Amino acid sequence: MPSATSSSPGSPEADRFLRACRREPVDRTPVWFMRQAGRYLPEYRAVRAGGDILEACRSPELAVEITLQPLRRMPLDAAILFSDIMVPVAAMGAGVRIVDGVGPVVDEPLRGEADLRSLRSLEPEADVGFVLEAIRLLRKELTVPLIGFAGAPFTIASYLVEGGPSRNHERTKALMRADPTTWGRLMELLGGMTTAYLRVQAEAGAQALQVFDSWAGALDPEDYAEFVLPVMRTVFAGLADLDVPLIHFGVGTGELLPLMRAAGATVVGVDWRVPLDVAWERAGLDAAVQGNLDPAVCLAGWDAVERKAIGVLRRAGGRPGHVFNLGHGVLPQTPPETLERLVDLVHERVEGAT
Amino acid sequence: MPSATSSSPGSPEADRFLRACRREPVDRTPVWFMRQAGRYLPEYRAVRAGGDILEACRSPELAVEITLQPLRRMPLDAAILFSDIMVPVAAMGAGVRIVDGVGPVVDEPLRGEADLRSLRSLEPEADVGFVLEAIRLLRKELTVPLIGFAGAPFTIASYLVEGGPSRNHERTKALMRADPTTWGRLMELLGGMTTAYLRVQAEAGAQALQVFDSWAGALDPEDYAEFVLPVMRTVFAGLADLDVPLIHFGVGTGELLPLMRAAGATVVGVDWRVPLDVAWERAGLDAAVQGNLDPAVCLAGWDAVERKAIGVLRRAGGRPGHVFNLGHGVLPQTPPETLERLVDLVHERVEGAT
Repeated sequence: MPSATSSSPGSPEADRFLRACRREPVDRTPVWFMRQAGRYLPEYRAVRAGGDILEACRSPELAVEITLQPLRRMPLDAAILFSDIMVPVAAMGAGVRIVDGVGPVVDEPLRGEADLRSLRSLEPEADVGFVLEAIRLLRKELTVPLIGFAGAPFTIASYLVEGGPSRNHERTKALMRADPTTWGRLMELLGGMTTAYLRVQAEAGAQALQVFDSWAGALDPEDYAEFVLPVMRTVFAGLADLDVPLIHFGVGTGELLPLMRAAGATVVGVDWRVPLDVAWERAGLDAAVQGNLDPAVCLAGWDAVERKAIGVLRRAGGRPGHVFNLGHGVLPQTPPETLERLVDLVHERVEGAT
Repeated sequence: MPSATSSSPGSPEADRFLRACRREPVDRTPVWFMRQAGRYLPEYRAVRAGGDILEACRSPELAVEITLQPLRRMPLDAAILFSDIMVPVAAMGAGVRIVDGVGPVVDEPLRGEADLRSLRSLEPEADVGFVLEAIRLLRKELTVPLIGFAGAPFTIASYLVEGGPSRNHERTKALMRADPTTWGRLMELLGGMTTAYLRVQAEAGAQALQVFDSWAGALDPEDYAEFVLPVMRTVFAGLADLDVPLIHFGVGTGELLPLMRAAGATVVGVDWRVPLDVAWERAGLDAAVQGNLDPAVCLAGWDAVERKAIGVLRRAGGRPGHVFNLGHGVLPQTPPETLERLVDLVHERVEGAT
């Protein structure tokens, strides 16, 4: 079984992910999976043992252990810190709980200007020192790059305004459109928090940063351009000097890909709805792309996984700048063995070959 | 207040919707709203009074009353029968309940070939006679066209296989990919039911038919083409001789629009994520289009509604073949007055004017 330290820093295996993010040639297509450290792993369920997820995030030792779990099973080309996008707002006292089978629930939803007072600037060491400690510990263990991450302002705002997960994001959109001043102030506050949070993660040792704007795909391009793009530009501009790849991901963002690229990320994450070659054209061929196997395929047996994964690699076409990933997080019912075989498949197949 | 009988058959008002569906010139852009007879109306909540929705669908008198409610408030250019996409499978004994705030729940989810035995052919008068009676009664009351509808096989299958609403449709996709034979048989059964159900609605008097494939947007174009398009072609081919407009609608279908048009519908419904002019190009300029205002806009105050609605009309550009609608159903929190003003706005604004 490969260990998390099976390749040495500077080796092709260790560099593959970062090179692909920079659109440099690679020996093999790098692969990692969103939510690769998660409920589909029995060892994850064992250490979590039903405990509170935010509590687990607050323990550097537990976060390190969970982050490493998938890397002990399969030779992934990157690790992603085990954490949750709600960690920084929760640390700042937003009254957030993560309810099993539901998602983030906010005790007192943010509904207007007066509620903005509950949001203050992030004080990294005091608020999220445990994250920084986990990153420092992980860098001692890992030979593959470590990805830090944060939720994007729109997605965090949706949880804060709706009070929990939402199908239609209607209160968020109503606030955005009916009270653009409050919305602008909210984006400014959350944007500042996102930038600060990602900066300290990079300073603590994260070698790439992913911004999850998971629900931005609920917006049409016009609203995205008006109400979200400005803050995303500020976020990415505030990280540009760090010299780490910046990955920008959302679900259902087919029409938003050019705008997400324009926001300033160097890697655009793509869900499975858009064929990868089409997505790459939309994001711009001067960007790297990450994706985009439908996570539900992994529940359908190996033949389907193989066929669809090869399809993704074919559409990438051997062009430098592809990081293989799922189009969204690993589903809890995924057999771990399927992902193990998938990593091997991606590594064994040289892009561009047919 | 305009009544449901304020225009006479053959008048411009009465013909507007059907003419636009056929891409013929119209005096005003026709407008109706998906779920226009629904919870946002106090008079709807009053007659429903917490009763079971499938029971309400089974009462022709109640279905007629609810169908007419929005037309008493605003001069909509079409009525849509009050019903539910689960009505025919529920009538055939699939053990379906509609749970408030959840959606359709299926007692014994369909998980493999053996479960197909619970699906039989539709016997229209015995199974859905109440729907046909409601249509006959409505045609006596209405001067605007009446739209009949059905759920598409993929969307119905998702409820049957998942056992309820699903974010990821993972069991459905797994069945589809891992057991294509059972999937093909399921599509054949549901496709036959859909065609038969829509045919008898047209024969009873429905003047247009809409197929709701609400969740088809969860599929990538390749899977849609392989696992869904064939049955949709059969459904639309089985309706082509009826000489009524066939509307094909789904959510998040930006990448599927060319395929949805290829299935054989004459009108393609579009959600709000794709700008209408882009969607029209994808669906093909030889199709009519229906949409596509974000329903969440209606919760954001009139200024936002006006601005976004004018944007939709501008993108339609005065080209014959646009039916104004929302990009999905009316949200329950929508103020009825907003929709009333919206109907007037669409009627007052001549397409192509700036």
